Amino acid sequence: MSFSVSVRAGIVVTGTEVLTGRVQDRNGPWLADQLLELGVELRHITLCGDRPADIEAQLRFLADEGVDLIITSGGLGPTADDMTVEVVARFCERELVLDDALEVKIGDIVTGLMTRFPGVDLDAVRAANRKQALVPAGAVVLDPVGTAPGVVVPGSPTVVVLPGPPRELQPMWDAAVTTDAVQAAIADRTPFEQQTVRMFGLPESGLADTLRAAESSVDGFEHLEITTCLRRGELEIVTRYEPRYAGVYTDLMTALRDRHPREIFSEDGALVDDQIAGLLEGRRIATAESCTGGLLAARLTERPGSSAYVVGGVVTYSDAAKVELLGVDPALIAQHGAVSEPVADAMARGALDRFGSDTAVAITGIAGPGGGTATKPVGTVCFSVALAEGAESSTVTRTMTMPGNRSDVRERSTTIAMHLLRRILVGGG
Amino acid sequence: MSFSVSVRAGIVVTGTEVLTGRVQDRNGPWLADQLLELGVELRHITLCGDRPADIEAQLRFLADEGVDLIITSGGLGPTADDMTVEVVARFCERELVLDDALEVKIGDIVTGLMTRFPGVDLDAVRAANRKQALVPAGAVVLDPVGTAPGVVVPGSPTVVVLPGPPRELQPMWDAAVTTDAVQAAIADRTPFEQQTVRMFGLPESGLADTLRAAESSVDGFEHLEITTCLRRGELEIVTRYEPRYAGVYTDLMTALRDRHPREIFSEDGALVDDQIAGLLEGRRIATAESCTGGLLAARLTERPGSSAYVVGGVVTYSDAAKVELLGVDPALIAQHGAVSEPVADAMARGALDRFGSDTAVAITGIAGPGGGTATKPVGTVCFSVALAEGAESSTVTRTMTMPGNRSDVRERSTTIAMHLLRRILVGGG
Repeated sequence: MSFSVSVRAGIVVTGTEVLTGRVQDRNGPWLADQLLELGVELRHITLCGDRPADIEAQLRFLADEGVDLIITSGGLGPTADDMTVEVVARFCERELVLDDALEVKIGDIVTGLMTRFPGVDLDAVRAANRKQALVPAGAVVLDPVGTAPGVVVPGSPTVVVLPGPPRELQPMWDAAVTTDAVQAAIADRTPFEQQTVRMFGLPESGLADTLRAAESSVDGFEHLEITTCLRRGELEIVTRYEPRYAGVYTDLMTALRDRHPREIFSEDGALVDDQIAGLLEGRRIATAESCTGGLLAARLTERPGSSAYVVGGVVTYSDAAKVELLGVDPALIAQHGAVSEPVADAMARGALDRFGSDTAVAITGIAGPGGGTATKPVGTVCFSVALAEGAESSTVTRTMTMPGNRSDVRERSTTIAMHLLRRILVGGG
Repeated sequence: MSFSVSVRAGIVVTGTEVLTGRVQDRNGPWLADQLLELGVELRHITLCGDRPADIEAQLRFLADEGVDLIITSGGLGPTADDMTVEVVARFCERELVLDDALEVKIGDIVTGLMTRFPGVDLDAVRAANRKQALVPAGAVVLDPVGTAPGVVVPGSPTVVVLPGPPRELQPMWDAAVTTDAVQAAIADRTPFEQQTVRMFGLPESGLADTLRAAESSVDGFEHLEITTCLRRGELEIVTRYEPRYAGVYTDLMTALRDRHPREIFSEDGALVDDQIAGLLEGRRIATAESCTGGLLAARLTERPGSSAYVVGGVVTYSDAAKVELLGVDPALIAQHGAVSEPVADAMARGALDRFGSDTAVAITGIAGPGGGTATKPVGTVCFSVALAEGAESSTVTRTMTMPGNRSDVRERSTTIAMHLLRRILVGGG
């Protein structure tokens, strides 16, 4: 690959709860994405606890590695163990000075919060928060979203100091980017286009083959930075390129469409969930689940506004529940077993009928670890999608065997059901 | 706090997909936990892409910081961009040597995998995998769980090189810990006890108050390292201490139980899900969900063996579904609204009846963002738990208003339902 990204960044995530894994860091990945979009190359993310010496060592490491921009998250609170600003000031060789206007601003915020807690010693609280109004001399202050202000310290590298809570960090990063100091630090960046394609029903090795072939057939392939990722049974292909290589990307897409016309379901990054939400407009869907235990219903109702098209669903774990709630013929279960295509079809038709819906999806399978047999091993799952158009109704049925543990089988089955439903609703069978 | 932890470690996580946030790193937090349990102090976690120079810089940084142990994850595959072993060998100043026995072992594994893909050029595959049999001279080889072997390179610091996929890394870390090299590196560690307590129904500030009080009332409190974390509406309190301070922990627990007898639901780290699974033994449960859309049913069926006590559930998103599938009186909905305690009770009784179960949980609420009113704002959720003992049946009903977005309300409601169910089943109402 030939890239000319010339602005480099590093991220320092502080906080003992993050270092020890008790709280998952969400700021590193989020900032990584923001930097990518800006055309800034992220080289290192480092995590440490609340020890000043460790924070300073990480700042020094990143500076020694030659990054142009360092972003820190965390350690801006009013308590004694929140020391990031002090450490950054020392690292940047700047004194800490009290910003009077900022002190008033923080005081107002804190007083507002404190009226909810009568009896709190307001003077003690204000003293603690005065600490938050100390900023490195010459730094640009970022107004607090919570109570903690951030700062941008211009220099080589320029350091952006942000609070730990993502809901505070994110808007404050947006503000930081508009400052002259950050704009100067990233002036030489290379803008990139980024495109996301999603595929389903293709193994990762199949995509690797296609990309290898594209390497020789697509002229200028080396100007595309392609990363692929297998997630929940879907392949995500993210491609980044400088705007002048847009034509190369067009050629890559032609090659991909050529080889995988059926597997590509999204060329604009939209999730299958987005697509299903659109396809269900004006319809009424009901679900009938066994092994997925409600995961499909939960996924369909995740979106705001889903009550417009989701009528409901049934989880029928026992055979009796399949008979009682979905009207499945007990003889069918006796003859074919609860995990069988005829039972899946009967469940889907039962859901249409009981909920008065025009679309139904049924899933019955063996999620394990127990319950498998020689002919129906753990991971065997039957799917049925039923559509009713007036008096007409049709069902499409599939049986799949998938690897993995109980949780994998349940998650994967939910995704397969979403894709089966999608294909049927777009008319691709 | 007074701690005498004297063995320090650092973790280097490699992989462009992890650095860019496309794949969430699960190895850093998992290894952090393992190190804590061993009594080894984790000082830094660093993430970088697949560039050898960046990996080497991070190794150097950690060594300069004086860690005794470095653990790396990722970059052990057969392809050209997997270079961790080579970089570590250079960093440790050891030559790469071909391990013949290892080459045979990898060859056998790969040949086994390849029989599934006829037509693959086996010689090319074997050549690629020979690369994986190159190890630093004098290193201890960790047998592959997938196809990639790990290595332990003794020294100052000792470096443990592990593969990226968690299902491979985890057993290989367990093997690494038993090696003489790692045992020597961590010989001076301080063993710790670790205890986890879980509470529900207490705000974080209430716990902070209690801990502040305990600081003066519990003798030796400073020898306990306490971290608290709010997660899914529950408080998790993890306490670590040297074995000789076990008595201090006992005193802390007495203080906690004193102030929060009702809120502590677990003193052994067990999750409410574990407890519910035990309490449902010999019972038959059914669910009736509206706003949670199947999340409660999915959570109850997450565990292997849950089919012994989960009969099934209904998701009734529309009023008509509540009437048709659960037998809720339409007049009740007209009079009180779908989100009301009478309707929640009727849903729970309907679930008992339709599924022939002896235990039922119903949830009906407004997850938002739309649908809120002045008297029933977004976040209003009604819960009902119904028990049938022979001909007797009883219901317990609660209404809660919770903050947060749609996803928060759905998740939180599921947790509240679990705790309500738990309290009723243990007889605490």
